[in-house]
Amino acid sequence: MAEKKQLKRKGSIMSVRDDVKVLDCTIRDGGLCNNFNFSDEFIRELYETNIKCGVDYMEFGYKASTRLFKESDFGKWKFCKEEDIRSIVGDNPSDMKISVMADVGRCDYKIDFLPKKESVIDMVRVACYIHQIPAAIQMINYLHDLGYETCCNIMAVSTVNLLELEEALQMVCQSHVDVIYLVDSYGSLYPETTSRFTEIYLSYAEETHKMLGFHGHNNQNLAFANTIEALSYGISYLDATCQGMGRGAGNCAMELLLGFLKNPKYNIYSLLQFIEKYMIPLKEQGVKWGYDLQYLFTGQLNRHPRAAIAFTRDNRDDYFEFYKEMLEDTY
Amino acid sequence: MAEKKQLKRKGSIMSVRDDVKVLDCTIRDGGLCNNFNFSDEFIRELYETNIKCGVDYMEFGYKASTRLFKESDFGKWKFCKEEDIRSIVGDNPSDMKISVMADVGRCDYKIDFLPKKESVIDMVRVACYIHQIPAAIQMINYLHDLGYETCCNIMAVSTVNLLELEEALQMVCQSHVDVIYLVDSYGSLYPETTSRFTEIYLSYAEETHKMLGFHGHNNQNLAFANTIEALSYGISYLDATCQGMGRGAGNCAMELLLGFLKNPKYNIYSLLQFIEKYMIPLKEQGVKWGYDLQYLFTGQLNRHPRAAIAFTRDNRDDYFEFYKEMLEDTY
Repeated sequence: MAEKKQLKRKGSIMSVRDDVKVLDCTIRDGGLCNNFNFSDEFIRELYETNIKCGVDYMEFGYKASTRLFKESDFGKWKFCKEEDIRSIVGDNPSDMKISVMADVGRCDYKIDFLPKKESVIDMVRVACYIHQIPAAIQMINYLHDLGYETCCNIMAVSTVNLLELEEALQMVCQSHVDVIYLVDSYGSLYPETTSRFTEIYLSYAEETHKMLGFHGHNNQNLAFANTIEALSYGISYLDATCQGMGRGAGNCAMELLLGFLKNPKYNIYSLLQFIEKYMIPLKEQGVKWGYDLQYLFTGQLNRHPRAAIAFTRDNRDDYFEFYKEMLEDTY
Repeated sequence: MAEKKQLKRKGSIMSVRDDVKVLDCTIRDGGLCNNFNFSDEFIRELYETNIKCGVDYMEFGYKASTRLFKESDFGKWKFCKEEDIRSIVGDNPSDMKISVMADVGRCDYKIDFLPKKESVIDMVRVACYIHQIPAAIQMINYLHDLGYETCCNIMAVSTVNLLELEEALQMVCQSHVDVIYLVDSYGSLYPETTSRFTEIYLSYAEETHKMLGFHGHNNQNLAFANTIEALSYGISYLDATCQGMGRGAGNCAMELLLGFLKNPKYNIYSLLQFIEKYMIPLKEQGVKWGYDLQYLFTGQLNRHPRAAIAFTRDNRDDYFEFYKEMLEDTY
């Protein structure tokens, strides 16, 4: 186990920290709410909005295997083909970088990624579960050699035992990865537990000069709170989405995060116009996400939100019965 | 300035702390959303629910002056007459205590409070602004002498300069008050700033053996996060409301708080039934509260929510224009 330094806040609530990067994953995590069926206009406006708001990275979606997933079942942002991204951004003349996510075991990374110099993608975020760490590292090193920035997003760590997690962190820190993400997949972390996980991640990342990121979920209305707690203790890469759009209870809302950060490069003006014009209609069309009791239950119980998502899809409102089902099903 | 001890968490996320008390203020803060027009059935069921859930205090409303406020303009819980509370609770044979709130300058406390032994009310929470501290102390000492437990809820402290706040805390700590509340009236605190305010309050309260409480608002989706941060650093009295019902963006949701606390006396079963049967219909009838962009703005700007409440009442959805109005109106 790496030596733990005493956990201290990095700077204060007024600090501008140059290490901080905001990543918009509205299309990627929000795409899980509507099968990635966004109009090109939506994506183009979001791209322009993010640039105006000072967002550092915009994630366009997944790079999923077309052998495992039928293209006709999803919008194109499940696959993020080079030509589709370019149809929105051209050569991306902006300062904002472009990322995609690729799940270990659900992508064909040796086929689907061009060498970086031929691609408009800047960063690939490799998502994996703890048992897939060796596969993730292979993928990360391969993508690094192609010229990409890489992240390792280890999912569902709230259910992983600490010994395994620390081994995984040690291994990932020996790879070519640039950023390691603390991912609260189930929305089960509290600010206090977030700070303790941050401490563990920092103890490995700092000595190998890796950056850290945080990706929250809003099951207990804590996605923003946990994000700024993680930030205050030294995590640099912060995921957020417009109005928190994301699977189930959704994510940290971009408007909360940009309003909090003190770096004058960030502002929410254009984001508010985007929300009025594109996000509110999306909700009115029936696309569902956001905090509600069913997600609170799975968050509190540290469980995958799938049962809560089904509860929502079925338009149930018998919260009490659902909670009982959850408890019966826990062990 | 009192000596500050180094800020440390009291116990861990698993601790059962006997000093912790949960106070339901659904009728009192929620009453601001519907002019206190709750049915007797609603109040009676909430009372039974709170008892079943292990809630420690239930606040029935305000003890407002009938000379300043016309009784016909409000539901009866704006005034909390002894006979109205007794019509719900009888002699309150439960372990749960009953509180009311009284605003300095908006109540006739020398007329309207019976001696404690003739009243079913256990605790009076005296709400004041910083300039009313001397008046609050007079009132607290008077009510203490009548036999009541007392709280001092100093409102809007996020806009008070620290020198005044520390003087106020010192004065209040010399009174007969039992509990001093840190009140985030504008929902402008973050977990980090909550912990720093907690540190200041503790430095005065601990040496005079006063208890502390926290009352949050959800403007930035942080009411629950701030409540459990305050708790973790030693605040004992925690305000919450069913589904966060309360003025504007609302409060810390009781279901989040009870699900978090580890004391087995607390549970959310009955609360879920109450929510299904009474809270969801309330929302369906058009009673409005809860996080939305307009409240985020006033929270971020550390402002009274009245403009955001008007925005909501007028069914506006031009968030961008409203934000510009807010900024023009700041100084």
